[in-house]
Amino acid sequence: MKVGDNLALLTDLYEFTMSAGFQRALDREQRGVFDIFYRQVPDNGSFVIAAGLQQALEEIQNMHFAKEDIAYLRSLNIFDEEFLTYLQNFKNTCDIWAVPEGTPIFPREPLMTIRGPLMEAQLYETFLLNILNHQTLIASKARRITAAAAGLPVMEFGARRAQGPSSALFGARAAIIGGAVATSNVLAGKKFDIPVSGTMAHSWIEAFDSEIDAFNAWADIYPDNCSLLVDTYDILNSGVPNAIKTFQRLKGEGHSSFGIRIDSGDITSLSRQARKMLDEAGFPDAKITISNSLNEEIISSLLHQGAQIDALGVGEELITSSSSPVLSGVYKLAAVERDGELIPKIKLSASRGKLTLPGLKQVYRLYHKGTNEAFADLIALKDERLPIVIHAVTADPMAIKQNKLLNNFEARPLQTEVMNGTKLLTSTPDVFAIQKFSKQQLAELPEATQRRLNPDEFPVYITPQLYALQQAVISQYTENY
Amino acid sequence: MKVGDNLALLTDLYEFTMSAGFQRALDREQRGVFDIFYRQVPDNGSFVIAAGLQQALEEIQNMHFAKEDIAYLRSLNIFDEEFLTYLQNFKNTCDIWAVPEGTPIFPREPLMTIRGPLMEAQLYETFLLNILNHQTLIASKARRITAAAAGLPVMEFGARRAQGPSSALFGARAAIIGGAVATSNVLAGKKFDIPVSGTMAHSWIEAFDSEIDAFNAWADIYPDNCSLLVDTYDILNSGVPNAIKTFQRLKGEGHSSFGIRIDSGDITSLSRQARKMLDEAGFPDAKITISNSLNEEIISSLLHQGAQIDALGVGEELITSSSSPVLSGVYKLAAVERDGELIPKIKLSASRGKLTLPGLKQVYRLYHKGTNEAFADLIALKDERLPIVIHAVTADPMAIKQNKLLNNFEARPLQTEVMNGTKLLTSTPDVFAIQKFSKQQLAELPEATQRRLNPDEFPVYITPQLYALQQAVISQYTENY
Repeated sequence: MKVGDNLALLTDLYEFTMSAGFQRALDREQRGVFDIFYRQVPDNGSFVIAAGLQQALEEIQNMHFAKEDIAYLRSLNIFDEEFLTYLQNFKNTCDIWAVPEGTPIFPREPLMTIRGPLMEAQLYETFLLNILNHQTLIASKARRITAAAAGLPVMEFGARRAQGPSSALFGARAAIIGGAVATSNVLAGKKFDIPVSGTMAHSWIEAFDSEIDAFNAWADIYPDNCSLLVDTYDILNSGVPNAIKTFQRLKGEGHSSFGIRIDSGDITSLSRQARKMLDEAGFPDAKITISNSLNEEIISSLLHQGAQIDALGVGEELITSSSSPVLSGVYKLAAVERDGELIPKIKLSASRGKLTLPGLKQVYRLYHKGTNEAFADLIALKDERLPIVIHAVTADPMAIKQNKLLNNFEARPLQTEVMNGTKLLTSTPDVFAIQKFSKQQLAELPEATQRRLNPDEFPVYITPQLYALQQAVISQYTENY
Repeated sequence: MKVGDNLALLTDLYEFTMSAGFQRALDREQRGVFDIFYRQVPDNGSFVIAAGLQQALEEIQNMHFAKEDIAYLRSLNIFDEEFLTYLQNFKNTCDIWAVPEGTPIFPREPLMTIRGPLMEAQLYETFLLNILNHQTLIASKARRITAAAAGLPVMEFGARRAQGPSSALFGARAAIIGGAVATSNVLAGKKFDIPVSGTMAHSWIEAFDSEIDAFNAWADIYPDNCSLLVDTYDILNSGVPNAIKTFQRLKGEGHSSFGIRIDSGDITSLSRQARKMLDEAGFPDAKITISNSLNEEIISSLLHQGAQIDALGVGEELITSSSSPVLSGVYKLAAVERDGELIPKIKLSASRGKLTLPGLKQVYRLYHKGTNEAFADLIALKDERLPIVIHAVTADPMAIKQNKLLNNFEARPLQTEVMNGTKLLTSTPDVFAIQKFSKQQLAELPEATQRRLNPDEFPVYITPQLYALQQAVISQYTENY
């Protein structure tokens, strides 16, 4: 009952029926272009932090259908043998472009683009969205939480509340991308080379006859990094005084790395009183870690109130992004290809906001020339050469159409080619290198765009060529159907 | 970059440090009892539907530490060789009791109890909570959604918005336990023998020159189960008329299973108008499936407004329980065992609501004698023989202490022993058998307890013996620490 050693079947049935349908109804080599993008930012933010690319590419490279997978599909009595044979010999032949993990990315911008046979690219929709939606969601939440922590280290402590094992594992990685410094999750530590951390649970304290016995036993075993949970019985009357006794003994034995963790009660007043007690007892360097259902609002409020905190352990609110637990990324056909020519496609809709952008595209971040100050993004057709002056149009179809004269800018493309058939064209950096890259990217955005509450909208434009193409496709459809 | 073939490392670091600590500070055979329970019901419901037991037991049976796991743990420079050797030879020796999957279970009731060596049972905390919290959360959400659907079939369509691959896979299984009839997730279909379903995406329509071309191509390939997505361009002016043309052709060729799917717009009016058009065209049996960000509130409202719906596809709101995405199940020490004697343990807390129940316990559902009408639950010590008349006490420590005279009842235990060492004592029924069991259990509860909004609280009591034990432990702690 494992997820399986590849995600080939972790796919909606209709991807298979469509893929088989494309094989029969169209030329098997009929190609197309799909974009992955999203429309709504979780938590009313203005952008997300892209994450999940590494796993996504590994899954595509590794994708194959085992004999038992084929047998199962055959048993559904939906598919013909030609299609099942195709699956048996499956390997990726698509070209894939994507923005690097850690990139701040705005609504409607293609964070991944897949170009290849329709019947093949269609099969990627479900698991690519599953992976990218999840990890991008958690990286974005971690960015919010670590921003609220204002430089204090945030540790990811959510494994027990994550939505299943892979949510815990890949969520921990995404949390680091978004700014966390460590995880409690040992598997994530091993797989992604992330520092692991943690103290003790209440069960440790309760297993002994008294709190001081439990603390002393711990100190004997882990004298060089003695962090004690002080809220099992009574924080100020028992936990902190007993911790201080333990630290005094350890100090006498030459040890010096001490800390306490508070997991309940009024953190502001408790942490301030605990700080005072520790300082007065001669332990100004003893660290106070807190960890009670924290999120960005609570952290911000605690710091504002003067809580004395050295580190934060954040669990369920981070690992599930519980205030906004869904990133609704979509996988939309942008073009089909016939005889080498791209035929642009869009999804019309009763909801104007769902209008898509046709064609094979690139997204550029625009900087004031000679600076690292980004002031807008621009979505263009991939083969456009950007002129020096652009009469750009707002990308949001819900906004009143506005033209904007862009000039004196430097345009840096965000998507790069990451896979060509079975060939990986990118190597995934260490997860802390991704975090560092992400922080650099964020530093280039206006502060107002990064605000937690009511962020300023960062302008995203499309080129006049892309706008004209979109309008032409709309007219054509509304005449034709 | 897989979750791995077992979850031994998907555990918080502190479980390992505590386990190693128990080995060194206490007798390696020192035993204890842990309970898994929760305090808050998601979505302000009154109970949850237990799920995840099958995966939980498989993980425990399968639990082992590979050489590279041991090497990683050694590299942390925290653990001694005695502990690493213990892990290398790890196998379960605990006794485990649990309520069957599908059981409606109330706050504070132990849904799983683990008795065994502390250093072993401590290692299970994180992954057991991860699995049980997740699957119980989704089964409970599915129960709410399928109840709102009032008998209409609900299909789980959420794979792309699930929080990672295992969330999609096990979430689909949990959705069936909670009442869904099918999933779009092919891997879940294969692994759990669940019917898979689905129609087509907009990309199918867009890949052809016109909607009618796309419909006709589909009908040629899948004539015996022709369900068409009608909202790519304009539902009433294009989608439904084109679908009817397609059905007319198929009908002429002797086919008879038709349907449409609506995925956007005002479902109430669109479905009613579509129904009328289909009926007037001679297709009263054509099914209307809807699928646009549905949840229990929207479904209830649509049905109240007279929307014409034959089936529902529910995605992100089900697979993430997005309105309430965390079940905060906990793993608490209830006793330690010395020389065969149980020493009861509790967690005191500044928050009175977090007070736990000590001892090795059983939970009973109480029925009016001679009926299948449950009227209360009762938590007792496992070795208590329930008398005919019980002066029970309310289990909720936040409630004003109330005594209640219970008599004329039949008490049915909810927990059964499910594992003894490496021996499984239960076989997992087919997932639809679990669903059926769950429905039977629900039928025995008062309707008012199952309401979606403001459900009536179902009474949960503890026996006077358990109450006395809890009070005794409290006094002892408050004197001692």
